[in-house]
Amino acid sequence: MTFSSDIKGEELESVKSQLDAEYEAIKNKKLSLDMSRGKPAAEQLDLSNGILTLPIHNYINCEGIDVRNYGILDGIKECKHLFSQLLNIKESNIIIGGNSSLNIIYDSIARYYIFGKLGSTPWCRLDKVKFLCPVPGYDRHFAICEEFGIDMINIPMKADGPDMDMIEELVKNDASIKGIFCVPLYSNPTGTCYSDQVVERLAGMETAAEDFTIFWDNAYGIHHIYEEEKLANIFDVCAKYGTEDRVLYFFSTSKMTFPGSGVAFIASGDKAIAEIRKRFSIQTIGYNKINQMRTYCFFKTPEGVREHMKALGKLLREKFDIVLDKLNSEFGNSDLLTWDHPKGGYFISVYTLPGCAKETVRLAKECGLILTDAGSAYPYHNDPEDRNIRIAPSYPTNEDLKKAMEVFCICVKLAAVNKIAKEN
Amino acid sequence: MTFSSDIKGEELESVKSQLDAEYEAIKNKKLSLDMSRGKPAAEQLDLSNGILTLPIHNYINCEGIDVRNYGILDGIKECKHLFSQLLNIKESNIIIGGNSSLNIIYDSIARYYIFGKLGSTPWCRLDKVKFLCPVPGYDRHFAICEEFGIDMINIPMKADGPDMDMIEELVKNDASIKGIFCVPLYSNPTGTCYSDQVVERLAGMETAAEDFTIFWDNAYGIHHIYEEEKLANIFDVCAKYGTEDRVLYFFSTSKMTFPGSGVAFIASGDKAIAEIRKRFSIQTIGYNKINQMRTYCFFKTPEGVREHMKALGKLLREKFDIVLDKLNSEFGNSDLLTWDHPKGGYFISVYTLPGCAKETVRLAKECGLILTDAGSAYPYHNDPEDRNIRIAPSYPTNEDLKKAMEVFCICVKLAAVNKIAKEN
Repeated sequence: MTFSSDIKGEELESVKSQLDAEYEAIKNKKLSLDMSRGKPAAEQLDLSNGILTLPIHNYINCEGIDVRNYGILDGIKECKHLFSQLLNIKESNIIIGGNSSLNIIYDSIARYYIFGKLGSTPWCRLDKVKFLCPVPGYDRHFAICEEFGIDMINIPMKADGPDMDMIEELVKNDASIKGIFCVPLYSNPTGTCYSDQVVERLAGMETAAEDFTIFWDNAYGIHHIYEEEKLANIFDVCAKYGTEDRVLYFFSTSKMTFPGSGVAFIASGDKAIAEIRKRFSIQTIGYNKINQMRTYCFFKTPEGVREHMKALGKLLREKFDIVLDKLNSEFGNSDLLTWDHPKGGYFISVYTLPGCAKETVRLAKECGLILTDAGSAYPYHNDPEDRNIRIAPSYPTNEDLKKAMEVFCICVKLAAVNKIAKEN
Repeated sequence: MTFSSDIKGEELESVKSQLDAEYEAIKNKKLSLDMSRGKPAAEQLDLSNGILTLPIHNYINCEGIDVRNYGILDGIKECKHLFSQLLNIKESNIIIGGNSSLNIIYDSIARYYIFGKLGSTPWCRLDKVKFLCPVPGYDRHFAICEEFGIDMINIPMKADGPDMDMIEELVKNDASIKGIFCVPLYSNPTGTCYSDQVVERLAGMETAAEDFTIFWDNAYGIHHIYEEEKLANIFDVCAKYGTEDRVLYFFSTSKMTFPGSGVAFIASGDKAIAEIRKRFSIQTIGYNKINQMRTYCFFKTPEGVREHMKALGKLLREKFDIVLDKLNSEFGNSDLLTWDHPKGGYFISVYTLPGCAKETVRLAKECGLILTDAGSAYPYHNDPEDRNIRIAPSYPTNEDLKKAMEVFCICVKLAAVNKIAKEN
């Protein structure tokens, strides 16, 4: 059944009672489905099982260092080399950290909060610190800001990245704006890819704060599904403006091999990375080099990584197809729901009628389908229009995903029809 | 050649020229020896190679959770259970972290610096924060304090732990004293074991600061070499006084399996650990559960751990014997050098004549033997009497260790005789 927001009168009544009946029928099925987080499915993880079963017989690395022992603060050379080649970042500007890029992001904010950046005032000594947050965005970035009492400013996401006119105006005039969170390729949750022009403007813009930092969380940098979008190399662009230290670049293998058991890194310009390396030398003796070695041995070359990502992308594509086909068949000719069309990443972002996202998620939960909380993709969980829902299709099996989408579409319609009925 | 500090006249001249000649001879050997850090030797690491080669076929843990995926913030149950049994700490009060207890210690200080502890004022908002540092102590603890601008107060180490009279007096009257660093068993570098009475007084003492915290770094908690010293269970003792939240307890497998690639944990009282768990939930999605699984599968039971530690202790005992036998034969009847007699741990702490430690280390370095810098075991690298040197005998082979001790003893004597000659 397809209808639009101009439905009224008897047709509205009839659709509403039909949807109520369908919803009750689903409720009675006592389903238990989860599309809330970007968790890989077991079959995706299986592709990396070599890491679990391949023994490491040679624990002396290419530099002659025993990776079982203390030593090497910033990552084994083979691992740095692999990432350097894969992403075109200078090896000397990479520090391999622990298992989680989110943790490195948190630590990076803590570091500037406590000690400041390259001689600037520590953020804990300032009355006010603000960050720019392209929305919809990643809830865990926003949670870190909230934890540190950092004010968040919503920046609308456009087709090719965040609204750069607004950003340039803000950062030029307000020295308390210290950073921006960017997921530049297949952004979480919109799938947006930053255009060359956006990257150029971020690299070159004038900032009132000398310690303004771009948190470049390239979490999906090689996570192509439909087509391979190209992202400009931000360090190359920054080099033109001498702003390499403005960028903290994050990457991890969490969504390549095993979430939480992969390898993450941070990269930056010469000065900023030297400062981070120095502070790391107090914070730890070193990170897990054996896991670095396992990761390297599993992939070996950038080509090895890309082959692996192709196989992963193929599995994800089946999931994305199920979601997008269903959305298209249910709402292709209706204004009840619109959605983004990601070419990679992990999420599909949808937009209900205004004021219907929370209710849709609530209805879904009531009948056994867990979605990411509505509003999660906005600072303070506040979606001003209450429209956005993030669909994470990776975890369920294809069968469950089909069931989940069936439930989801009915909930979208029911929330919409209830709203329309109320307003009529 | 044995002599004491009362040597003089012709005998002094003769000994000095003999030592000069011996030193020159060693210098010409162009040795390259290292006793600077507590690094395990390769043969120690070999005992844990099972972790490198044993495949993980069952990645579903005892709670039915796929350890390859996201989920479980505070550690897999089998790993928590293992440590809980091994060290008699309630499972619910343990959070398994990443690969490094030092990192968790650093993060714990950063956490209270930024956010405060259980409602108290964040340390970054205070004019002054001080820590008590039993000396000689662990250089990396002191480096963290220095990084955070925390004032360090030296507390003399006595035979059964730090000077408790001094500690009680200080913490009762000064609310800016926020913590103390303790390595309670086989302390780094003295090998001191805290007596039941010391533990009791730490647990029960009145502190002006409500957020006073004992950093209980039990790094060598099961690292017995000669005899098995017993350490009182600080949580049991604290329970009598209701001070469990005063203690942050740290432990890691770095010196059991592979340094930097092991598993570390933090434990505390109910309230303090709940607060840490909440903050961890913002800092990370989770730690490396596969490494936790590997560690568990390697040890399986507390008995498995203890058997492993016996084998490690046996290897270390050979090293300690070489050092202690040599010290005894060279300085047993002399006042030029005294030393502690550790029953476990990783270090032997020696004391030269006043004003001779730096010169001894310099002389050793000149002829190819790297020792830990003199003064390292004191805050700000300032050993007031310039007497303490930390010997770390674990890393060299037995052959090299013998050579290193030969060099070391000559350097101790040469530094002493030069000083005596100068003062005569």
